[in-house]
Amino acid sequence: MKKRENIVLMLARRRKSIREYRRDEDIPIEKILTAIEAALEAPSGRNCQPWRFIIIRDKGLKRRIREACEEAEKPFHQRVKGEFKKWLQDRGITWRKPFLEDAPILIAVYSDTECPYPSQSTWIAIAYLILAIEAEGLASLTYTPSKTSKVNEILGVPNRYRLETIIPVGYPSRDKRKEHRAALEERVFIDRWGNRLDITVK
Amino acid sequence: MKKRENIVLMLARRRKSIREYRRDEDIPIEKILTAIEAALEAPSGRNCQPWRFIIIRDKGLKRRIREACEEAEKPFHQRVKGEFKKWLQDRGITWRKPFLEDAPILIAVYSDTECPYPSQSTWIAIAYLILAIEAEGLASLTYTPSKTSKVNEILGVPNRYRLETIIPVGYPSRDKRKEHRAALEERVFIDRWGNRLDITVK
Repeated sequence: MKKRENIVLMLARRRKSIREYRRDEDIPIEKILTAIEAALEAPSGRNCQPWRFIIIRDKGLKRRIREACEEAEKPFHQRVKGEFKKWLQDRGITWRKPFLEDAPILIAVYSDTECPYPSQSTWIAIAYLILAIEAEGLASLTYTPSKTSKVNEILGVPNRYRLETIIPVGYPSRDKRKEHRAALEERVFIDRWGNRLDITVK
Repeated sequence: MKKRENIVLMLARRRKSIREYRRDEDIPIEKILTAIEAALEAPSGRNCQPWRFIIIRDKGLKRRIREACEEAEKPFHQRVKGEFKKWLQDRGITWRKPFLEDAPILIAVYSDTECPYPSQSTWIAIAYLILAIEAEGLASLTYTPSKTSKVNEILGVPNRYRLETIIPVGYPSRDKRKEHRAALEERVFIDRWGNRLDITVK
């Protein structure tokens, strides 16, 4: 089938968000740098390239980041109710964030708030990055802590930069199913909102 | 060299933002749908999949969108000064947006503001989309109008959805150089802000 030939579609289909990592794996830094090189090629508002990446391998630092994030998550998880609570429970998602310590590498991604469209541009770079990580045969997650001030302090980041996400990178410690995705027909319209894609369009 | 083998890096390097398109080209809708299928695989906050895509091929609609966007751009371009003005002039970027009419296809991308992290998630999908478009051998641009209300009205979009970008898709009418990108050393730190990547790290 023609569709299967798009390499980005193939990688995008294969990639899953992974929350459990094998500990103490050695990841060659070259793989991480290659993936970040892809991220650096993203387009950005006024070509400002607002992204900054901090590669974190130090175990002490990873533990401190985990502790800071878990502290920030507790009030959020105490507050959460109803359907969302169930959704989190079904996936074993709690205030505990062991992936921040277990994953051999974390990549903290910052945006320069003095650039135009800093977040939008940086999330393009993040997407390039996670796809390139997939292409390197590694797993990842985009995790954004509920509060970021403590992490910024640990990493010594100036106020002007905003923490967009922390990406653990490594090998999954167990397999998981990819979350369901909506079909084309549920997300795509033709020429006008509500005008559904149908076979005659194709 | 090992680095060249990452297919995402290769595509990311090849892709350039294109503002001038060949008119009246016929683009098979399958190529567009395949690229959007890649976008649908993006991760999102609470797997809410906040993205919506409107594929616009109708010439009358494209003209109206162009007119609405140009009207919104004029005050912005009258206001702009100094270095940024020069940056725009060097690239021939004015309030005129012919690509909105010349490109055979526009993809308007919306986010559902009732989802968590709607913009962040949608920009991951947008990045997957533009890389998948590149893999299909087509050019693209992420263009965000200065004001979006008129476009939303033309397309009949409910208030709850936010226009993140309009992506023209087609073939370049002339070649251009890719904008310069900063080197790894300028965007990457190790373990702490300001701690530069050097040869000993590699």
